[in-house]
Amino acid sequence: MQRNAVVLLSGGLDSTTVCAMACHENRRVFALSFDYNQRHRVELQAAREAAKAFQVAEHLVLPIDLSLFGGSSLTDPNLPVERTVPLEEIGRHIPSSYVPARNTVFLSLALAFAETRNAEEIWIGVNRIDYSGYPDCRPEFIAAFENLANLATKAAVENGTRFSIVTPLLDLTKGEIIRRGIELGVDYSTTRTCYSPDQQGRACGVCESCLLRLAGFRDAGLTDPAPYANDPLV
Amino acid sequence: MQRNAVVLLSGGLDSTTVCAMACHENRRVFALSFDYNQRHRVELQAAREAAKAFQVAEHLVLPIDLSLFGGSSLTDPNLPVERTVPLEEIGRHIPSSYVPARNTVFLSLALAFAETRNAEEIWIGVNRIDYSGYPDCRPEFIAAFENLANLATKAAVENGTRFSIVTPLLDLTKGEIIRRGIELGVDYSTTRTCYSPDQQGRACGVCESCLLRLAGFRDAGLTDPAPYANDPLV
Repeated sequence: MQRNAVVLLSGGLDSTTVCAMACHENRRVFALSFDYNQRHRVELQAAREAAKAFQVAEHLVLPIDLSLFGGSSLTDPNLPVERTVPLEEIGRHIPSSYVPARNTVFLSLALAFAETRNAEEIWIGVNRIDYSGYPDCRPEFIAAFENLANLATKAAVENGTRFSIVTPLLDLTKGEIIRRGIELGVDYSTTRTCYSPDQQGRACGVCESCLLRLAGFRDAGLTDPAPYANDPLV
Repeated sequence: MQRNAVVLLSGGLDSTTVCAMACHENRRVFALSFDYNQRHRVELQAAREAAKAFQVAEHLVLPIDLSLFGGSSLTDPNLPVERTVPLEEIGRHIPSSYVPARNTVFLSLALAFAETRNAEEIWIGVNRIDYSGYPDCRPEFIAAFENLANLATKAAVENGTRFSIVTPLLDLTKGEIIRRGIELGVDYSTTRTCYSPDQQGRACGVCESCLLRLAGFRDAGLTDPAPYANDPLV
Protein backbone atom coordinates (compact mmCIF):
# COMPACT_ATOMS: atom_id res chain seq x y z
CA MET A 1 0.00 0.00 0.00
CA GLN A 2 1.18 3.50 -0.84
CA ARG A 3 2.26 5.46 2.21
CA ASN A 4 1.26 9.10 2.58
CA ALA A 5 4.02 11.68 3.01
CA VAL A 6 4.13 15.43 3.46
CA VAL A 7 6.91 17.09 1.43
CA LEU A 8 8.07 20.61 2.25
CA LEU A 9 8.34 22.09 -1.23
CA SER A 10 9.79 25.57 -1.54
CA GLY A 11 10.32 25.38 -5.29
CA GLY A 12 14.10 25.44 -4.92
CA LEU A 13 16.61 22.88 -6.11
CA ASP A 14 16.79 20.83 -2.91
CA SER A 15 13.09 20.54 -2.08
CA THR A 16 12.15 19.79 -5.69
CA THR A 17 14.67 16.94 -5.69
CA VAL A 18 13.19 15.68 -2.40
CA CYS A 19 9.72 15.71 -3.98
CA ALA A 20 11.06 13.64 -6.89
CA MET A 21 12.66 11.19 -4.45
CA ALA A 22 9.45 10.76 -2.43
CA CYS A 23 7.47 10.09 -5.61
CA HIS A 24 10.16 7.65 -6.77
CA GLU A 25 9.84 5.83 -3.41
CA ASN A 26 6.14 5.41 -4.17
CA ARG A 27 4.85 7.83 -1.57
CA ARG A 28 1.50 9.56 -2.00
CA VAL A 29 2.77 13.13 -1.72
CA PHE A 30 1.06 16.04 0.04
CA ALA A 31 3.22 19.02 -0.84
CA LEU A 32 3.30 22.09 1.42
CA SER A 33 4.65 25.50 0.45
CA PHE A 34 4.59 28.78 2.36
CA ASP A 35 3.84 32.25 1.17
CA TYR A 36 5.71 33.93 4.02
CA ASN A 37 6.27 37.29 2.35
CA GLN A 38 9.69 36.15 1.18
CA ARG A 39 11.37 38.47 -1.29
CA HIS A 40 11.86 35.53 -3.65
CA ARG A 41 8.17 34.66 -3.95
CA VAL A 42 8.90 33.63 -7.53
CA GLU A 43 9.80 30.27 -5.94
CA LEU A 44 6.10 29.62 -5.31
CA GLN A 45 5.40 29.43 -9.03
CA ALA A 46 8.32 27.00 -9.29
CA ALA A 47 6.75 24.94 -6.48
CA ARG A 48 3.42 24.86 -8.33
CA GLU A 49 5.13 23.67 -11.50
CA ALA A 50 6.99 20.94 -9.62
CA ALA A 51 3.80 19.80 -7.85
CA LYS A 52 2.10 19.57 -11.23
CA ALA A 53 5.01 17.79 -12.91
CA PHE A 54 5.11 15.14 -10.18
CA GLN A 55 1.29 14.85 -9.99
CA VAL A 56 1.22 15.09 -6.20
CA ALA A 57 -2.01 14.18 -4.41
CA GLU A 58 -2.38 17.71 -2.98
CA HIS A 59 -0.39 20.93 -2.99
CA LEU A 60 -1.21 23.48 -0.30
CA VAL A 61 0.33 26.97 -0.36
CA LEU A 62 -0.18 28.36 3.12
CA PRO A 63 0.07 32.11 3.79
CA ILE A 64 2.04 32.88 6.97
CA ASP A 65 3.50 36.37 7.04
CA LEU A 66 6.84 35.96 8.81
CA SER A 67 7.79 39.51 7.82
CA LEU A 68 5.61 40.67 10.74
CA PHE A 69 8.40 39.48 13.04
CA GLY A 70 11.22 41.04 11.00
CA GLY A 71 14.84 40.17 11.67
CA SER A 72 15.73 38.67 8.27
CA SER A 73 16.94 40.03 4.94
CA LEU A 74 14.66 37.46 3.28
CA THR A 75 11.50 39.11 4.56
CA ASP A 76 12.62 42.71 5.15
CA PRO A 77 13.11 44.71 1.93
CA ASN A 78 15.20 47.23 3.91
CA LEU A 79 17.86 44.66 4.82
CA PRO A 80 20.14 43.70 1.91
CA VAL A 81 20.86 40.05 1.11
CA GLU A 82 24.60 39.46 1.55
CA ARG A 83 26.45 39.18 -1.72
CA THR A 84 29.75 37.97 -3.15
CA VAL A 85 30.63 36.00 -0.03
CA PRO A 86 33.63 33.76 -0.86
CA LEU A 87 32.36 30.21 -1.30
CA GLU A 88 34.72 28.84 1.35
CA GLU A 89 33.31 31.30 3.91
CA ILE A 90 29.77 29.94 3.57
CA GLY A 91 28.71 28.02 6.66
CA ARG A 92 31.15 29.78 8.99
CA HIS A 93 28.55 32.23 10.25
CA ILE A 94 24.78 32.48 10.17
CA PRO A 95 23.90 34.84 7.30
CA SER A 96 21.40 37.73 7.31
CA SER A 97 19.08 35.54 5.24
CA TYR A 98 18.42 33.44 8.35
CA VAL A 99 14.68 33.70 9.09
CA PRO A 100 14.02 33.39 12.85
CA ALA A 101 12.81 29.88 13.67
CA ARG A 102 11.78 29.28 10.05
CA ASN A 103 12.24 25.52 9.89
CA THR A 104 10.63 25.12 13.33
CA VAL A 105 7.57 26.99 12.04
CA PHE A 106 7.55 25.13 8.71
CA LEU A 107 7.93 21.68 10.32
CA SER A 108 5.21 22.50 12.86
CA LEU A 109 2.79 23.36 10.10
CA ALA A 110 3.91 20.27 8.17
CA LEU A 111 3.10 18.23 11.26
CA ALA A 112 -0.42 19.64 11.37
CA PHE A 113 -0.79 18.87 7.65
CA ALA A 114 0.61 15.34 8.15
CA GLU A 115 -1.74 14.59 11.02
CA THR A 116 -4.80 15.58 9.01
CA ARG A 117 -3.67 13.70 5.88
CA ASN A 118 -2.77 10.45 7.68
CA ALA A 119 0.89 10.85 6.77
CA GLU A 120 3.58 9.48 9.09
CA GLU A 121 6.45 11.02 7.18
CA ILE A 122 7.56 14.60 6.64
CA TRP A 123 10.24 14.95 3.96
CA ILE A 124 12.51 17.99 4.11
CA GLY A 125 15.54 18.96 2.02
CA VAL A 126 17.98 19.93 4.76
CA ASN A 127 21.62 19.26 4.07
CA ARG A 128 24.60 18.86 6.36
CA ILE A 129 27.27 19.87 3.87
CA ASP A 130 26.04 22.86 1.89
CA TYR A 131 23.84 24.15 4.65
CA SER A 132 24.89 27.80 4.80
CA GLY A 133 25.25 27.74 8.56
CA TYR A 134 21.54 27.70 9.44
CA PRO A 135 21.05 26.11 12.88
CA ASP A 136 17.68 24.65 11.90
CA CYS A 137 19.20 22.48 9.15
CA ARG A 138 21.37 20.40 11.49
CA PRO A 139 20.66 16.72 12.23
CA GLU A 140 20.36 17.39 15.99
CA PHE A 141 17.60 19.91 15.27
CA ILE A 142 15.77 17.41 13.07
CA ALA A 143 16.05 14.68 15.75
CA ALA A 144 14.68 17.08 18.40
CA PHE A 145 11.72 17.95 16.17
CA GLU A 146 10.94 14.29 15.52
CA ASN A 147 10.92 13.69 19.27
CA LEU A 148 8.57 16.66 19.75
CA ALA A 149 6.21 15.49 16.99
CA ASN A 150 5.67 12.19 18.74
CA LEU A 151 4.67 13.94 21.97
CA ALA A 152 2.60 16.73 20.39
CA THR A 153 -0.12 15.03 18.46
CA LYS A 154 -3.34 13.12 18.93
CA ALA A 155 -2.20 10.78 16.15
CA ALA A 156 0.91 9.80 18.11
CA VAL A 157 -0.64 9.68 21.59
CA GLU A 158 -4.00 8.09 20.84
CA ASN A 159 -3.53 6.24 17.55
CA GLY A 160 0.05 5.03 17.81
CA THR A 161 1.28 6.97 14.78
CA ARG A 162 5.08 7.24 14.75
CA PHE A 163 6.11 10.38 12.89
CA SER A 164 9.46 10.51 11.15
CA ILE A 165 11.28 13.40 9.56
CA VAL A 166 12.87 12.13 6.36
CA THR A 167 16.02 13.94 5.21
CA PRO A 168 17.30 12.20 2.07
CA LEU A 169 19.72 15.03 1.19
CA LEU A 170 21.34 15.24 4.60
CA ASP A 171 24.73 13.81 3.62
CA LEU A 172 24.78 14.59 -0.11
CA THR A 173 26.82 17.33 -1.74
CA LYS A 174 24.98 19.77 -3.99
CA GLY A 175 26.55 18.05 -6.99
CA GLU A 176 25.24 14.67 -5.85
CA ILE A 177 21.78 16.12 -5.26
CA ILE A 178 21.69 17.49 -8.80
CA ARG A 179 22.87 14.22 -10.35
CA ARG A 180 20.20 12.30 -8.43
CA GLY A 181 17.54 14.80 -9.48
CA ILE A 182 18.50 14.52 -13.15
CA GLU A 183 18.17 10.72 -12.90
CA LEU A 184 14.68 11.17 -11.47
CA GLY A 185 13.58 13.60 -14.18
CA VAL A 186 13.74 16.90 -12.31
CA ASP A 187 13.65 19.87 -14.68
CA TYR A 188 16.02 22.28 -12.92
CA SER A 189 15.24 25.05 -15.39
CA THR A 190 12.01 25.66 -13.45
CA THR A 191 13.45 25.47 -9.91
CA ARG A 192 14.27 28.75 -8.17
CA THR A 193 17.04 29.09 -5.61
CA CYS A 194 18.14 32.75 -5.65
CA TYR A 195 17.25 34.87 -2.62
CA SER A 196 17.41 38.09 -4.60
CA PRO A 197 15.93 37.58 -8.06
CA ASP A 198 15.15 40.46 -10.43
CA GLN A 199 11.66 41.50 -11.57
CA GLN A 200 11.69 38.79 -14.25
CA GLY A 201 12.52 36.14 -11.66
CA ARG A 202 16.09 35.75 -12.94
CA ALA A 203 18.72 34.73 -10.40
CA CYS A 204 21.35 37.25 -9.24
CA GLY A 205 24.24 34.78 -9.49
CA VAL A 206 26.07 36.27 -6.51
CA CYS A 207 24.07 35.58 -3.33
CA GLU A 208 25.04 32.63 -1.09
CA SER A 209 22.18 30.57 -2.40
CA CYS A 210 23.24 31.14 -6.04
CA LEU A 211 26.90 30.41 -5.27
CA LEU A 212 26.06 27.05 -3.68
CA ARG A 213 23.78 26.13 -6.55
CA LEU A 214 26.28 27.10 -9.24
CA ALA A 215 29.10 25.24 -7.50
CA GLY A 216 26.80 22.20 -7.39
CA PHE A 217 26.19 22.28 -11.13
CA ARG A 218 29.91 22.73 -11.72
CA ASP A 219 30.65 19.70 -9.51
CA ALA A 220 28.04 17.69 -11.36
CA GLY A 221 29.71 18.63 -14.65
CA LEU A 222 26.58 20.41 -15.83
CA THR A 223 25.41 23.91 -16.72
CA ASP A 224 22.56 25.35 -14.65
CA PRO A 225 19.58 25.67 -17.03
CA ALA A 226 17.87 28.34 -14.86
CA PRO A 227 17.88 31.96 -16.04
CA TYR A 228 20.42 34.41 -14.56
CA ALA A 229 20.35 38.20 -14.73
CA ASN A 230 24.15 38.37 -14.95
CA ASP A 231 26.82 35.93 -16.03
CA PRO A 232 27.32 33.63 -13.03
CA LEU A 233 30.55 34.21 -11.10
CA VAL A 234 31.49 30.57 -10.57
CA MET B 1 16.83 45.38 34.28
CA GLN B 2 13.46 44.34 32.94
CA ARG B 3 13.55 41.06 31.06
CA ASN B 4 11.60 40.68 27.81
CA ALA B 5 9.06 37.88 27.57
CA VAL B 6 6.68 36.65 24.91
CA VAL B 7 3.25 35.73 26.29
CA LEU B 8 0.87 33.56 24.27
CA LEU B 9 -2.39 35.42 24.80
CA SER B 10 -5.54 33.83 23.42
CA GLY B 11 -7.91 36.06 25.36
CA GLY B 12 -9.15 33.19 27.49
CA LEU B 13 -9.06 32.82 31.25
CA ASP B 14 -5.73 30.98 31.50
CA SER B 15 -3.63 33.05 29.11
CA THR B 16 -4.96 36.34 30.48
CA THR B 17 -3.94 35.24 33.96
CA VAL B 18 -0.50 34.30 32.61
CA CYS B 19 -0.18 37.77 31.09
CA ALA B 20 -1.02 39.31 34.48
CA MET B 21 1.58 37.08 36.17
CA ALA B 22 4.32 38.04 33.68
CA CYS B 23 3.59 41.73 34.21
CA HIS B 24 3.55 41.19 37.99
CA GLU B 25 6.99 39.54 37.69
CA ASN B 26 8.20 42.73 36.01
CA ARG B 27 8.59 41.30 32.53
CA ARG B 28 8.40 43.54 29.46
CA VAL B 29 5.61 41.66 27.70
CA PHE B 30 5.32 40.99 23.96
CA ALA B 31 1.90 39.40 23.61
CA LEU B 32 1.12 37.12 20.66
CA SER B 33 -2.35 36.06 19.54
CA PHE B 34 -3.43 34.05 16.51
CA ASP B 35 -6.28 34.59 14.14
CA TYR B 36 -6.41 30.96 13.02
CA ASN B 37 -9.98 30.98 11.72
CA GLN B 38 -11.19 29.65 15.05
CA ARG B 39 -14.94 29.62 15.49
CA HIS B 40 -14.56 31.57 18.73
CA ARG B 41 -12.75 34.54 17.18
CA VAL B 42 -14.49 36.71 19.75
CA GLU B 43 -11.53 35.76 21.96
CA LEU B 44 -9.29 38.04 19.89
CA GLN B 45 -11.19 41.11 21.09
CA ALA B 46 -10.74 39.83 24.63
CA ALA B 47 -6.99 39.47 23.95
CA ARG B 48 -6.83 43.05 22.71
CA GLU B 49 -8.59 44.29 25.83
CA ALA B 50 -6.23 42.34 28.08
CA ALA B 51 -3.16 43.61 26.21
CA LYS B 52 -4.45 47.15 26.67
CA ALA B 53 -5.32 46.67 30.33
CA PHE B 54 -1.85 45.34 31.13
CA GLN B 55 -0.10 47.92 28.91
CA VAL B 56 2.08 45.35 27.18
CA ALA B 57 5.04 46.57 25.11
CA GLU B 58 3.60 45.06 21.92
CA HIS B 59 0.60 42.95 20.96
CA LEU B 60 0.79 41.11 17.63
CA VAL B 61 -2.24 39.29 16.22
CA LEU B 62 -0.89 36.95 13.56
CA PRO B 63 -3.16 35.48 10.89
CA ILE B 64 -2.50 31.76 10.30
CA ASP B 65 -5.42 29.91 8.79
CA LEU B 66 -5.31 26.47 10.42
CA SER B 67 -8.76 25.69 8.98
CA LEU B 68 -6.94 24.93 5.69
CA PHE B 69 -5.75 21.70 7.29
CA GLY B 70 -9.15 20.77 8.75
CA GLY B 71 -9.51 17.99 11.30
CA SER B 72 -10.88 20.05 14.21
CA SER B 73 -14.30 21.17 15.36
CA LEU B 74 -12.69 24.47 16.38
CA THR B 75 -11.86 25.42 12.80
CA ASP B 76 -14.41 23.44 10.78
CA PRO B 77 -17.96 24.84 11.00
CA ASN B 78 -19.29 21.46 9.78
CA LEU B 79 -17.95 19.58 12.80
CA PRO B 80 -19.94 20.19 15.99
CA VAL B 81 -18.16 21.07 19.24
CA GLU B 82 -18.90 18.32 21.76
CA ARG B 83 -21.40 19.35 24.39
CA THR B 84 -22.66 18.30 27.78
CA VAL B 85 -19.72 16.00 28.43
CA PRO B 86 -19.80 14.95 32.12
CA LEU B 87 -17.12 16.94 33.96
CA GLU B 88 -15.44 13.80 35.28
CA GLU B 89 -15.04 12.47 31.72
CA ILE B 90 -12.98 15.48 30.61
CA GLY B 91 -9.36 14.51 30.05
CA ARG B 92 -10.09 10.83 29.42
CA HIS B 93 -10.03 11.22 25.65
CA ILE B 94 -8.82 13.88 23.22
CA PRO B 95 -11.88 15.92 22.23
CA SER B 96 -12.93 16.98 18.71
CA SER B 97 -11.81 20.51 19.61
CA TYR B 98 -8.20 19.31 19.40
CA VAL B 99 -6.52 21.35 16.64
CA PRO B 100 -3.76 19.32 14.96
CA ALA B 101 -0.36 20.38 16.29
CA ARG B 102 -1.77 23.70 17.52
CA ASN B 103 0.56 24.33 20.43
CA THR B 104 3.55 23.20 18.35
CA VAL B 105 2.62 25.78 15.72
CA PHE B 106 1.88 28.49 18.31
CA LEU B 107 5.11 27.91 20.25
CA SER B 108 7.13 27.88 17.01
CA LEU B 109 5.74 31.26 16.03
CA ALA B 110 6.28 32.50 19.60
CA LEU B 111 9.90 31.41 19.27
CA ALA B 112 10.32 33.47 16.09
CA PHE B 113 8.72 36.43 17.89
CA ALA B 114 10.95 35.92 20.94
CA GLU B 115 14.11 35.76 18.87
CA THR B 116 13.35 39.03 17.12
CA ARG B 117 12.30 40.80 20.35
CA ASN B 118 15.33 39.67 22.39
CA ALA B 119 13.12 37.68 24.73
CA GLU B 120 14.47 34.53 26.37
CA GLU B 121 11.15 33.49 27.86
CA ILE B 122 7.92 32.28 26.32
CA TRP B 123 5.04 32.16 28.79
CA ILE B 124 2.15 29.81 28.04
CA GLY B 125 -0.94 28.90 30.06
CA VAL B 126 -0.86 25.13 29.80
CA ASN B 127 -2.17 23.22 32.74
CA ARG B 128 -1.64 19.69 33.94
CA ILE B 129 -4.84 19.32 35.89
CA ASP B 130 -7.65 20.84 33.89
CA TYR B 131 -6.05 20.19 30.54
CA SER B 132 -8.90 18.52 28.66
CA GLY B 133 -6.67 15.70 27.41
CA TYR B 134 -4.73 17.70 24.82
CA PRO B 135 -1.34 16.03 24.22
CA ASP B 136 0.35 19.38 23.56
CA CYS B 137 -0.40 20.69 27.05
CA ARG B 138 1.68 18.06 28.88
CA PRO B 139 4.93 18.87 30.66
CA GLU B 140 6.89 16.37 28.53
CA PHE B 141 5.74 18.20 25.41
CA ILE B 142 6.81 21.55 26.87
CA ALA B 143 10.24 20.15 27.83
CA ALA B 144 10.72 18.76 24.31
CA PHE B 145 9.86 22.13 22.80
CA GLU B 146 12.30 23.94 25.05
CA ASN B 147 15.02 21.53 23.97
CA LEU B 148 14.14 22.17 20.32
CA ALA B 149 14.15 25.96 20.76
CA ASN B 150 17.71 25.87 21.99
CA LEU B 151 18.86 23.97 18.89
CA ALA B 152 16.73 25.84 16.35
CA THR B 153 17.76 29.44 16.62
CA LYS B 154 20.59 31.79 15.75
CA ALA B 155 20.08 33.42 19.15
CA ALA B 156 20.79 30.15 20.96
CA VAL B 157 23.58 28.86 18.71
CA GLU B 158 25.48 32.06 18.02
CA ASN B 159 24.59 34.40 20.87
CA GLY B 160 24.23 32.01 23.79
CA THR B 161 20.57 32.79 24.43
CA ARG B 162 18.94 30.12 26.58
CA PHE B 163 15.22 29.97 25.82
CA SER B 164 12.81 28.80 28.46
CA ILE B 165 9.14 27.97 28.24
CA VAL B 166 7.47 29.34 31.35
CA THR B 167 4.33 27.52 32.51
CA PRO B 168 3.13 29.18 35.73
CA LEU B 169 -0.29 27.46 35.61
CA LEU B 170 1.04 23.95 35.12
CA ASP B 171 0.15 22.61 38.56
CA LEU B 172 -2.68 24.93 39.54
CA THR B 173 -6.36 24.02 39.57
CA LYS B 174 -8.73 26.26 37.66
CA GLY B 175 -9.97 27.62 40.99
CA GLU B 176 -6.43 28.52 42.05
CA ILE B 177 -5.78 30.19 38.70
CA ILE B 178 -8.86 32.35 39.12
CA ARG B 179 -8.00 33.33 42.70
CA ARG B 180 -4.48 34.30 41.60
CA GLY B 181 -5.85 36.31 38.68
CA ILE B 182 -8.28 38.19 40.91
CA GLU B 183 -5.37 39.12 43.22
CA LEU B 184 -3.49 40.48 40.19
CA GLY B 185 -6.41 42.53 38.93
CA VAL B 186 -7.62 40.40 36.03
CA ASP B 187 -11.11 41.40 34.90
CA TYR B 188 -12.59 38.01 34.01
CA SER B 189 -15.73 39.62 32.63
CA THR B 190 -13.75 40.40 29.46
CA THR B 191 -11.99 37.03 29.06
CA ARG B 192 -13.51 34.53 26.64
CA THR B 193 -13.23 30.77 27.08
CA CYS B 194 -16.19 29.22 25.26
CA TYR B 195 -15.47 27.30 22.06
CA SER B 196 -18.95 27.80 20.73
CA PRO B 197 -20.18 31.31 21.56
CA ASP B 198 -23.34 32.80 20.07
CA GLN B 199 -23.46 35.78 17.70
CA GLN B 200 -23.23 38.21 20.61
CA GLY B 201 -20.11 36.45 21.90
CA ARG B 202 -21.96 34.95 24.88
CA ALA B 203 -20.68 31.61 26.15
CA CYS B 204 -22.72 28.43 25.58
CA GLY B 205 -22.25 27.15 29.14
CA VAL B 206 -22.14 23.51 28.07
CA CYS B 207 -18.95 22.87 26.04
CA GLU B 208 -15.92 21.34 27.77
CA SER B 209 -14.21 24.68 27.93
CA CYS B 210 -17.22 26.31 29.64
CA LEU B 211 -17.63 23.40 32.08
CA LEU B 212 -14.01 23.65 33.23
CA ARG B 213 -14.27 27.42 33.60
CA LEU B 214 -17.53 27.29 35.52
CA ALA B 215 -16.23 24.57 37.83
CA GLY B 216 -13.20 26.78 38.47
CA PHE B 217 -15.31 29.73 39.52
CA ARG B 218 -17.38 27.43 41.72
CA ASP B 219 -14.21 26.08 43.37
CA ALA B 220 -12.96 29.63 43.88
CA GLY B 221 -16.27 30.49 45.57
CA LEU B 222 -17.05 33.08 42.90
CA THR B 223 -19.56 33.71 40.15
CA ASP B 224 -18.24 33.97 36.61
CA PRO B 225 -18.81 37.59 35.51
CA ALA B 226 -18.67 36.70 31.76
CA PRO B 227 -21.92 36.67 29.76
CA TYR B 228 -23.66 33.34 29.08
CA ALA B 229 -26.37 32.67 26.51
CA ASN B 230 -28.07 30.15 28.82
CA ASP B 231 -28.05 29.57 32.53
CA PRO B 232 -24.82 27.71 33.22
CA LEU B 233 -25.29 24.02 34.03
CA VAL B 234 -22.76 23.81 36.87
